[in-house]
Amino acid sequence: MLGLMQSQPLLISNLITFAERHHGDAQIVSRRVEGDMHRYTYRDAAQRSRQVARALDGLGLAFGDRVATLAWNGYRHFELYFGVSGSGRVLHTINPRLHPDQIAWIANHAQDEVLCFDLTFLPIVQAICGKANIGHYIALCEADQLPQDSGIPGLRSYEEWVGGCDDRYDWPTFDENTASSMCYTSGTTGNPKAALYSHRSTLLHAYGAALPDAMGLSARDAVLPVVPMFHVNAWGIPYSAALTGAKLVFPGPGLDGKSVYELLEAEQVTYAAGVPTVWQMLLTHMKPTGLRFSSLKRTVIGGSACPPAMISAFRDDYGVEVLHAWGMTEMSPLGTVCTLKNKHLGLGEAEQMKIRLKQGRAVFGVDMKIVGDDGIELPWDGKTFGNLLVRGPWVLGQYFKGEGGDPLQGGWFPTGDVATIDADGYMQITDRSKDVIKSGGEWISSIDIENLAVAHPAVAMAACIGMPHPKWDERPIVLVVKRPGAEVTREELLAFYEGKIAKWQIPDDVVFVESIALGATGKILKTRLREQLKGYRLPGL
Amino acid sequence: MLGLMQSQPLLISNLITFAERHHGDAQIVSRRVEGDMHRYTYRDAAQRSRQVARALDGLGLAFGDRVATLAWNGYRHFELYFGVSGSGRVLHTINPRLHPDQIAWIANHAQDEVLCFDLTFLPIVQAICGKANIGHYIALCEADQLPQDSGIPGLRSYEEWVGGCDDRYDWPTFDENTASSMCYTSGTTGNPKAALYSHRSTLLHAYGAALPDAMGLSARDAVLPVVPMFHVNAWGIPYSAALTGAKLVFPGPGLDGKSVYELLEAEQVTYAAGVPTVWQMLLTHMKPTGLRFSSLKRTVIGGSACPPAMISAFRDDYGVEVLHAWGMTEMSPLGTVCTLKNKHLGLGEAEQMKIRLKQGRAVFGVDMKIVGDDGIELPWDGKTFGNLLVRGPWVLGQYFKGEGGDPLQGGWFPTGDVATIDADGYMQITDRSKDVIKSGGEWISSIDIENLAVAHPAVAMAACIGMPHPKWDERPIVLVVKRPGAEVTREELLAFYEGKIAKWQIPDDVVFVESIALGATGKILKTRLREQLKGYRLPGL
Repeated sequence: MLGLMQSQPLLISNLITFAERHHGDAQIVSRRVEGDMHRYTYRDAAQRSRQVARALDGLGLAFGDRVATLAWNGYRHFELYFGVSGSGRVLHTINPRLHPDQIAWIANHAQDEVLCFDLTFLPIVQAICGKANIGHYIALCEADQLPQDSGIPGLRSYEEWVGGCDDRYDWPTFDENTASSMCYTSGTTGNPKAALYSHRSTLLHAYGAALPDAMGLSARDAVLPVVPMFHVNAWGIPYSAALTGAKLVFPGPGLDGKSVYELLEAEQVTYAAGVPTVWQMLLTHMKPTGLRFSSLKRTVIGGSACPPAMISAFRDDYGVEVLHAWGMTEMSPLGTVCTLKNKHLGLGEAEQMKIRLKQGRAVFGVDMKIVGDDGIELPWDGKTFGNLLVRGPWVLGQYFKGEGGDPLQGGWFPTGDVATIDADGYMQITDRSKDVIKSGGEWISSIDIENLAVAHPAVAMAACIGMPHPKWDERPIVLVVKRPGAEVTREELLAFYEGKIAKWQIPDDVVFVESIALGATGKILKTRLREQLKGYRLPGL
Repeated sequence: MLGLMQSQPLLISNLITFAERHHGDAQIVSRRVEGDMHRYTYRDAAQRSRQVARALDGLGLAFGDRVATLAWNGYRHFELYFGVSGSGRVLHTINPRLHPDQIAWIANHAQDEVLCFDLTFLPIVQAICGKANIGHYIALCEADQLPQDSGIPGLRSYEEWVGGCDDRYDWPTFDENTASSMCYTSGTTGNPKAALYSHRSTLLHAYGAALPDAMGLSARDAVLPVVPMFHVNAWGIPYSAALTGAKLVFPGPGLDGKSVYELLEAEQVTYAAGVPTVWQMLLTHMKPTGLRFSSLKRTVIGGSACPPAMISAFRDDYGVEVLHAWGMTEMSPLGTVCTLKNKHLGLGEAEQMKIRLKQGRAVFGVDMKIVGDDGIELPWDGKTFGNLLVRGPWVLGQYFKGEGGDPLQGGWFPTGDVATIDADGYMQITDRSKDVIKSGGEWISSIDIENLAVAHPAVAMAACIGMPHPKWDERPIVLVVKRPGAEVTREELLAFYEGKIAKWQIPDDVVFVESIALGATGKILKTRLREQLKGYRLPGL
């Protein structure tokens, strides 16, 4: 027997329609590539999204066709989020930090029909337009800002393209499992593979992400997503903001400390989300001049682990709550957020901090477990670490075009992370599966080794990798970039580990290097390090 | 092209499984019918829910069969919520305040196979068991508390029934549109009709209700639902609590001011939900002795409009935020909650209070509009009032067994309420459609007339109804119950209206009565008043 409630698909167009009807005059403020500020409302955004849908009709784009973007966080990008997906096409957000060859490859793999780009990325587009089979190029600018002789075939300005379109448009109704958007993983190994989100997964994620135990978004918030809309949909904030009617503040390309600070203050932002690097730049900007926040209440930090000192600085010096979060492209991206439970409210600050350093608890919609290499589930004791697996309606089932075959293990998606989970369900990443060092049947966390190294005053950056060993299978070594002017020897650094971890976990060697390569999403490219170390032999072998 | 995220139905069993895995030791505390306190955890509740599923298997209940409850808010009722729906049966919560004949009628209409009841309701069950075709009667008690010679055929105790069952049970996976639970409307006109909820509608509602703009539930909360689980699922709180891992505090039958206060304090409740009557009893208990709240932060008040004085008392005297909410059985029930927007944060207290008195804004998942009798949408100006229509995935599409035909108007459900909506989307109920007085082509709100009457110091209760009039179609009269010992004349009361509303809106007459009949959900039974007034003629006719 079926229930008798209304049958209504979960569609992305519902979000912008809701925002228009119920939060029509809530503001969307954007710093533009041109440097000036642009402000309008959800009502305007909804109207322009409908014009986008019409403009896509005008190009003859079919249902399911891909529309790519290479763009900063801004109002035009926001309109594309709703106009493209809402009309049944698939929004393909491209990470401009990838190599142009990779972007061209991705655009062809995705079969992008249209590419909309900020002028910042003109050189990239010029580099790829000869290689990518894209039918239509749209520069996100006014008609009179369109670059002359760009060499890009048929280049049009966004304003000329959508500006003349009728804004009356009935959003189509279709199966909520229809593809809505896609994002390629950073692809540290092999070719990038794409997660293909659906309207359903996006809306369920938008509900989950707005919950008080996740981002806690409401119509009282002014939200600054520093996390990019070109990668995993800015953690879903554009959707959750429309769902709640929160004021949106888009930083455009201005991600330096000064620009972010000015925007936070000018727009009285209450909530911001970003990676640790951005917040470090912000704190570095604020500290010397004694600047304060007048409105910021909480920030969610993800992408990589947040240093404890940063959490303390935000909390103790500025009264801003810092929430650790964890997710990935394949998870839309939200998996866990580190909010406390009722039972923790009576704990002292130090005890609470121990919890805050973890990546957090699962939001309803995500389940997780840790397993050994044999696939057997491991205990939630906060100590045992294993391969982290997740499942849920906004977790990837397979990659676009079935690339890489069936990624699931018994219905669970292997994240490629190694983690502990404690009895309260708080997960802590200890490593990437491919980076964990397997020594004599035991696992050593490369991240632990790196964190200890950077705690040494002379160390600017560290990367730990496992080297093959005939007896132990693998042994860890640590590559270190010294701080400018600082000195430390191999022996001093190895001695620094003593008493901090078990003796068998201490690296076998320290290799000093000039730099450590980071990938497009700011993560250490350990594969590249291994190539660099080709021919290296562990001491004593 | 379909998205490639995991295909996972939204099932009620997911909620209890999530709570068990991620909030296993979060507490569920219940005041029992026996008077003592019971406490256990989500882990225990999940285990016992699985035993309930097994016990239903043991009775041979098929998928979709109905299991009824006549029970207070407590842990056993909570287990039934998950055990019954999770195993694919349909939970039918019955309102014990209905007349036994109506309950018997409802049980037969729903085709209930099992009835689980608190011993409080033994007399009701004894009264109906000869009339209702129910196969199995279960008393929610220990085996040794089972009443002897009850006359109820085959009566068993819940603990004996579920206690021996194996707690290993794999929740079945099925279509999320499957019916999960049902609730009959109060049925002020004609036979009661049932809303038949689905797993999908329940889970979407659970997400929506937990949002910061709705109830704002998190794992840091201790939640006291005073609203009954026997009517519209206690506003969905059991589900939203499992979704967030909030501590649950169930009041059982103890709804008097003293019992509620003691429970709030003993269990350090942060959030409570109920109807105005309950909060009035609570405030009446607290005031004389100067009692304070040590943990309560916010309360959601719905069911009927909350008097401004009560909102002020909670806010000003006790520092508790009061949120007005509105919904109905046919809406799972949440429609609107009155939380402020970012733009209101700078307003003064008096301006904010004007907003708080409205029923609130739609939660994403609900859309609404007001229309005239011609079905044409009316403006959102906060003044124009019209029939309130709603739609969304947790709004009723049709009644159980198709009773009453197709209730929708162009895909929208007519709520039977008359309301205004302002430019910010805040809705305010002005009347029930059937109660609004249509005088000379204009509408007069019976609620406005009643509110003004009860503002007179001599008036305890008032009910306004429209009487037929040859020239104006209808004219309002007001029925009044005087406060004990107080005196007021017809002329004084009519004069009291002058200057407060337009002259043509002032009632044509005042009729003093001894009492005004309320229905099972605390609403004035205006149909009964009309019967009482049979033969009454308006002055001058």
